[in-house]
Amino acid sequence: MGWTPQGKHLIAGEWVVGEARFRSAPAHGPAHGFAGGSADLVDRACAAAEEAFCTYGWTGREERAAFLDAIAGEIEARAEAITAIGTQETGLPEARLQGERGRTVGQLRLFADHIRKGDYLDRRHDKALPDRQPPRPDLRLIQRPIGPVAVFGASNFPLAFSTAGGDTASALAAGCPVVVKGHPAHPGTGEIVAEAIHAAIRATGMPAGSFGFIHGDRHEVGAALVQHPLIRAVGFTGSLHGGRALYDLCAARPEPIPFFGELGSINPCFVLPGAFAARGAQLARDWTASLTMGAGQFCTNPGLLVLRAEDADTFTAAAVEALADAPEQVMLTEGIAAAYRAGAARIGAHAAAVLEQDSRGRNARPGIYRTSARDFLHSHDLGEEVFGPLGLVVTTTSDDEILGLARALDGQLTASLQMEAGDTALARRLMPVLERKAGRVLANGWPTGVEVADAMVHGGPYPASTNFGATSVGTLAIRRFLRPVCFQNLPDALLPEDLRG
Amino acid sequence: MGWTPQGKHLIAGEWVVGEARFRSAPAHGPAHGFAGGSADLVDRACAAAEEAFCTYGWTGREERAAFLDAIAGEIEARAEAITAIGTQETGLPEARLQGERGRTVGQLRLFADHIRKGDYLDRRHDKALPDRQPPRPDLRLIQRPIGPVAVFGASNFPLAFSTAGGDTASALAAGCPVVVKGHPAHPGTGEIVAEAIHAAIRATGMPAGSFGFIHGDRHEVGAALVQHPLIRAVGFTGSLHGGRALYDLCAARPEPIPFFGELGSINPCFVLPGAFAARGAQLARDWTASLTMGAGQFCTNPGLLVLRAEDADTFTAAAVEALADAPEQVMLTEGIAAAYRAGAARIGAHAAAVLEQDSRGRNARPGIYRTSARDFLHSHDLGEEVFGPLGLVVTTTSDDEILGLARALDGQLTASLQMEAGDTALARRLMPVLERKAGRVLANGWPTGVEVADAMVHGGPYPASTNFGATSVGTLAIRRFLRPVCFQNLPDALLPEDLRG
Repeated sequence: MGWTPQGKHLIAGEWVVGEARFRSAPAHGPAHGFAGGSADLVDRACAAAEEAFCTYGWTGREERAAFLDAIAGEIEARAEAITAIGTQETGLPEARLQGERGRTVGQLRLFADHIRKGDYLDRRHDKALPDRQPPRPDLRLIQRPIGPVAVFGASNFPLAFSTAGGDTASALAAGCPVVVKGHPAHPGTGEIVAEAIHAAIRATGMPAGSFGFIHGDRHEVGAALVQHPLIRAVGFTGSLHGGRALYDLCAARPEPIPFFGELGSINPCFVLPGAFAARGAQLARDWTASLTMGAGQFCTNPGLLVLRAEDADTFTAAAVEALADAPEQVMLTEGIAAAYRAGAARIGAHAAAVLEQDSRGRNARPGIYRTSARDFLHSHDLGEEVFGPLGLVVTTTSDDEILGLARALDGQLTASLQMEAGDTALARRLMPVLERKAGRVLANGWPTGVEVADAMVHGGPYPASTNFGATSVGTLAIRRFLRPVCFQNLPDALLPEDLRG
Repeated sequence: MGWTPQGKHLIAGEWVVGEARFRSAPAHGPAHGFAGGSADLVDRACAAAEEAFCTYGWTGREERAAFLDAIAGEIEARAEAITAIGTQETGLPEARLQGERGRTVGQLRLFADHIRKGDYLDRRHDKALPDRQPPRPDLRLIQRPIGPVAVFGASNFPLAFSTAGGDTASALAAGCPVVVKGHPAHPGTGEIVAEAIHAAIRATGMPAGSFGFIHGDRHEVGAALVQHPLIRAVGFTGSLHGGRALYDLCAARPEPIPFFGELGSINPCFVLPGAFAARGAQLARDWTASLTMGAGQFCTNPGLLVLRAEDADTFTAAAVEALADAPEQVMLTEGIAAAYRAGAARIGAHAAAVLEQDSRGRNARPGIYRTSARDFLHSHDLGEEVFGPLGLVVTTTSDDEILGLARALDGQLTASLQMEAGDTALARRLMPVLERKAGRVLANGWPTGVEVADAMVHGGPYPASTNFGATSVGTLAIRRFLRPVCFQNLPDALLPEDLRG
C-alpha cells in the first residue's frame, strides 16, 4: 500500500478542504484531486500563523533546533513515499528525489546547528557610560524574528526549494511561522512533506499555526497570501514574470514588505584561451553534462558560454558529439516544456542552431545555438533565460569584447571562469565586472550543484533576485527573516532570553 | 569675513551651475541664490559616481578609513562657518549646531574605526572537502559594496542626517560613492559640508566622483536621482508622504532598488502606575523637556504619552505648568511651521486641548492634547505624526486597554516604558507587543537623543521605516550598502584583498 494524498490544506493544525478543486498532472502514475485555495483559507492560515508567533517567536533556540531536527526525521520516515509521489508528479528520476531529500534534511539540520551556535543573533552591547556628558545609556542589540512568512513552492525543486525547503527552514529557524503556497505541479509531494512537518509540530509541542500549507493552482491564492496584512516577508523561487508580479504586489501594499524572489539567470561561463588550449574538448563535454542535468531545469543552468571565435568550431563540435546520444527527458510540466520550445524558437530567431532542439509533448531535447558577441549585444532576447537544456555559445574576437559582453549582462546568480595560470591577467580584468553581476563567482567548475553552506550565496543583482543583499541558500538566508531591535536600559527581567546576564 | 555659498553643485570634482535657480529662505541673515538641480545634472553626477566606483569600490579599508577621518577633520576646520550658516538657515541655536557637528564627525570616525576592524565583512570560509561525494568546493563569502548610493539631506538634521551624515558616512565606509540631494531648507550648510568632503577627496587622492552634491528645490530632481539606472540604493530621512513617493519610484524601476527611508514616528511612552506614583510630576516635566527640545523637530519626539486615567489630571497639570514659560521657537521652514499648525488642528478636532498651541509665522509653541484610549483607537488621525512640539496624552482604564492600545499602534522608531519594580508584571506583558512595533525599546528614559553606537537601531516597522531589517544610525547602518558575494575555488590572485591568504 503506497501513500495517497488526501488533497487537503493544513491550517491551524487541521486538514481542511475548500470549495475549489483541481487535479494533479503527473508525468506518470495516477492523477489525484486536490482542494484549491482561496483568499478565505489564506486568511485563516495567516491568522493561525500570527497567533502561533506569539508563542513560537519566543521559543528558545534549542527548542526550535529540536523542531527542525524532528522535521528532518519525519521526512526521512516518509522517504520511500516521498520519492514515489515526487517522481510521479515531476518526472524527475528516483536518484534525484533521493539526493534532493538528503539535501533537504541536511539543510534543516544545518539551520538547527546554526541557531544553536547563536552567532546569527549578532548580539551587540554598548555598556552604559554614566560619567560621560551626556551619559550613555546601556544599549543591547539582537536580531529578532519578523513574524509570519509566506513561502512559495518552486516547480523545479519539489523538496529542497518547496514545502520544507531553504525558505521554510530558514524562516522557522529564525522563529517565524510559515505559510506555504504549494506548487500545483507537485501537490502530493508538497502535501506529504506538510504531513511530516505537522507530525514534527505534534511531536515537539510547537503551536499548531507554526506551519500552514495551502494548495492552489490559481494566481489569486498567491496574490492573497502576499497581500495579507499579517505576512511580514515572502520567499519565492520561480520565473521572472511571476516573481515580478508578486514583488509588485508586495511593494504596493499599504505597509510594504520585502519580497525575496530568486527569479533565474543564464549563468555565463567564460572559457578563457589557456583553459581552452589545455582542455577544450573536455570542457565541452563537461558543459553539456551540466547543461542537460535534470533537463536543464536548474536556476544555475549554464545557459551562456563565452569563448574566442577561433575556439568555437572545435568546442561546439565536441559539445554536439557529447549530446549525440542525449536521451529525451521529461520536463516538470507541460507548460514548462512548451515554454522551453518557445524560448528555443526565440533564441533560434537571432542565433544559429548548432544543434536544433527537437522535442515534443512534455519532453525536452537539448539545443545548442551560436552567435557573436556583437549580435548578442544587439538583441536583448538572447540574454533572457530559457528554462531547460539550452545553451548559447557567444564568440568573441578580443579581450575587450569579452569585457564589454560581461558589462552588458543582466544580474546573475553565478558567473564562471574556466582558466589556467596563463589566463590570470584577463581573469583579473573580468573579476570586478563579474563580481558586480553575480552572487557567486567560480573558477574551473560549473554552476549547477549549489552547496548548502555558511559561505554560499544563491542570489544576485536583479533579475537574478529581487534583493541583491540576500541569499536563499546557506545559513546567511536566515537574515532575511530577522530584524534588529535595540533594548535601552532595560532591566534583565524584560530582556529577551538571549540578551540576559 | 564669513563664508558665503557659491550656490553651485559638486559634480565629478567640479563646482558647476545649471539653468534653474532658487533662493534660500533662512530663519535669519541674508538669503542666497543657489543653482537648481536637473535630471541632466543628476545624470552627470551618477555617471561620475559609477566611474569612481571602479576605483573607490576596491580601495583598502585603511584608505577609506583615512578618507572618513579626513572628512571629519575638514568639517572641524570649517566649524565656525558651518555653525554660522547652519543657524541662519535652520533657526536652530548655536549649541545645537555645535553638538550636531560633534555627532557628525564622531559618526565619521566611528565608521572609520568600524571598517578598520573588519567584522562588518562577515567573512565566511567553507574549506574544500575533496574526498566527500560529491566533493565540496572551496567557498568564501564576503560583503562587498553595492555601487553608487543616493542620499537625501534631511530638513531636521542639517549635519548629522544630511550631506556628511549617517547615510553618507556608512555608504562611503562600505565603499560606495554617494550622490547627495541637498535639502533646500539648508542649501548653504549642505554646500559647505560638500566643500569639506571635496577637500578630503583631494587630500587623500580619492576619485573625484566618489562624492557628488546636487542642490534642488523641486521634486523632479529627487525623482530623477532615485530612478537613475546607476543608483543601487537610496538613504532618506523625511516625511511619510515624500518618502513613500520615492519608495514607490524605487519599487517601480525596471530594476528595483532598496529605498532605506526613515519616515517618522509618534514614539509612544508608557507611564506605568508605579512610575507615576514614585515620580509623576518629575516625569511630566521631563516629558515636556524632551517634547519641546529643538521645537519638537526630532524623529524620536515623544508625541504619544499613555497613562492611567486617574493619573492624567495631575500629570497634565504638571506638564502645563512646566510649559508655562516655554519660549516660542523658530521652526526649520515656513512649510514645517504651517504643517505643525495643521497637524495640531487635526489632533484638536478629535482630542481635548489641555494646552492649545498658539503660534504664528515660522514659530511654534507647544500643544498638549488629551483623549481616551477608546477614542484614540477609533480615530486613525490621532495616531499620525505631527512634526513639532505636540504631545497627545492617552488615558487608559485597565491593563488590557493599555495592551490593546499598544497592539493597535503603527510601526515606531521607539517605544518607552517609565516603570518601577512593581510595574514589572505589566511591562512583561507589554514587551512582546512593543518589540514588534519599534526598532528601539527603552526603559526610564525619553526617546530623543539617539546614541551613535554599535547596538543602536534607528528604524522599525513601517511607517517608521521602509525596511524593518535596517537601521540608519549606528554601525549596523553599513549593512544597507553591502551585498554578499561567494567566491568558489578562486585562486588567491583573483580574490578580493580581504579574502586572500
